[in-house]
Amino acid sequence: MIQKLIDGILSKGAPVVVGLDPNLSFIPGFILKNAEEAAEGEIPEYCEKENVIAAEAVWQFNKSIVDAVYDLVPAVKPQSAMYEQFGIPGMIAYRKTIEYCRSKGLIVIGDVKRGDIGSTSEAYARGHLAGKAFDVDFATVNPYLGSDGIKPFLKICKEYDKGIFVLVKTSNPSSGEFQDVLIGDGRAVFELVGQKVREWGADSMEGVYSNVGAVVGATYPEQAKILRKLMPHTFILAPGYGAQGATAADLSGFFDADGLGAIVNSSRGIIAAYKKQEYSKYGEEGFADAARAAACDMIEDLRGAIRVGRTVWRADR
Amino acid sequence: MIQKLIDGILSKGAPVVVGLDPNLSFIPGFILKNAEEAAEGEIPEYCEKENVIAAEAVWQFNKSIVDAVYDLVPAVKPQSAMYEQFGIPGMIAYRKTIEYCRSKGLIVIGDVKRGDIGSTSEAYARGHLAGKAFDVDFATVNPYLGSDGIKPFLKICKEYDKGIFVLVKTSNPSSGEFQDVLIGDGRAVFELVGQKVREWGADSMEGVYSNVGAVVGATYPEQAKILRKLMPHTFILAPGYGAQGATAADLSGFFDADGLGAIVNSSRGIIAAYKKQEYSKYGEEGFADAARAAACDMIEDLRGAIRVGRTVWRADR
Repeated sequence: MIQKLIDGILSKGAPVVVGLDPNLSFIPGFILKNAEEAAEGEIPEYCEKENVIAAEAVWQFNKSIVDAVYDLVPAVKPQSAMYEQFGIPGMIAYRKTIEYCRSKGLIVIGDVKRGDIGSTSEAYARGHLAGKAFDVDFATVNPYLGSDGIKPFLKICKEYDKGIFVLVKTSNPSSGEFQDVLIGDGRAVFELVGQKVREWGADSMEGVYSNVGAVVGATYPEQAKILRKLMPHTFILAPGYGAQGATAADLSGFFDADGLGAIVNSSRGIIAAYKKQEYSKYGEEGFADAARAAACDMIEDLRGAIRVGRTVWRADR
Repeated sequence: MIQKLIDGILSKGAPVVVGLDPNLSFIPGFILKNAEEAAEGEIPEYCEKENVIAAEAVWQFNKSIVDAVYDLVPAVKPQSAMYEQFGIPGMIAYRKTIEYCRSKGLIVIGDVKRGDIGSTSEAYARGHLAGKAFDVDFATVNPYLGSDGIKPFLKICKEYDKGIFVLVKTSNPSSGEFQDVLIGDGRAVFELVGQKVREWGADSMEGVYSNVGAVVGATYPEQAKILRKLMPHTFILAPGYGAQGATAADLSGFFDADGLGAIVNSSRGIIAAYKKQEYSKYGEEGFADAARAAACDMIEDLRGAIRVGRTVWRADR
């Protein structure tokens, strides 16, 4: 699966993933109004009307965003919390979003951050990677429980040609509370996790990279340099660009000499671009065009900063 | 909410939670057959027939187990992975299970092990603790992302009188890979997490205990002794009894001098008891009676080992 992601990055010349985190506050009023009208009528069992409306709005919003960016980027990353909060209709919107994105040729990274052990971990892997429930191409996984939590995912990934991104060094301000703590030998906890990600991925190689990737926040360029060296065959999913403060310059250390090795996520910086001064000319009605403009700008920004990769991508365009 | 759990433990004389992890291999053949028949007819959109059958079997199985044990124990712990794996119908079965358990007066601990940051973490908290989607009383939460992941849960818990159990030292064999690593000052990572759990919970007290609890595996009694001292006001959810190898004697260090401070989970040891030699006389048809017998035996076993608490519980019966 990692090779499919790389092919997408190369063919579109964009190491960019659009985060589909449709916070209700991002959704234009006219979509919410449409959704309210669509929800008139019978409310299915185990669904509250409020959730049916929210889920319909999320779905309409996502569809327009996807239509506006699918030819620019290789991948999307729906964030499961934003759907789960709306219960059963929310989960249906999650599934519809996944299926629609796949129909548009996009690789789907399910940002589910699941993590459990043994048969429970395998159940999560089956639910998200085995083509029978919420069928994404990659899932994000939390490593706190150790190998017992990861190995069942590796098994399912092999069986269904899928991949995972393991949380190593997350983009948020408090990620250092546990991840940066120095252990006896002078390394930080995130380095130990990175070392294990490298080991977990050794048996899942597709060419240069493994189907076991890592999440490393774009907001931590120094830590990323350490991890890039420590995990030479690990593809990095880097959240934190834009809204969380990371710039293209911060990202150069995430990439390998071949200009590959990382994919950068932006969520609200793209999907809620119309709310920013910079793209305000599009207005609420033009939210999808604003998202397209923001995605183009992000791609150009990254191409400017990641000089080595630039050659590869330009050649393909 | 922690006080409601304590009241339940005292009134039933049982610091026991039944884990509702309905692995399909635990479900008797006749229930699967019933479920197949019930699934004849139209399959709703976004549901596969296979998942509709599995979810119906899970629901029928859970209902019988709950009917058999609800008067014995104060709480149940459905494990979300076991439902999520069956997609939309699985999530409906999760919700039906939660609602049924609450209607029987049981406290419901949603074993979801979610963990994200900021508005995403708040969305998970809203989805599981705010009474509008999958409405449980406590949720389990993963601490790897630090305070940014926990604080949104604390906010929602305050607003809706709910609680969380944060993973500190998990019961599985590989939990030591990251959790036991010694940090610079000679403490282990799990102690640092325990220290933070204590801090996070300081502002959510209800009497002696906080609404912020901790998951500490019954399989690690030595670590539990350290954590019991470190987190004097933290209620412990202890998985790992029975099937994972922990005995009642291992659990004495989990409890406080008042005989409270912990609740012990057993999943397959109770719900799949009929498959064990010890309860084989009940047969497949008697799976619920076997679960009741196993729950009674577990309660007696714990009462024998936790001598201080025994007085409290006996007095209440």
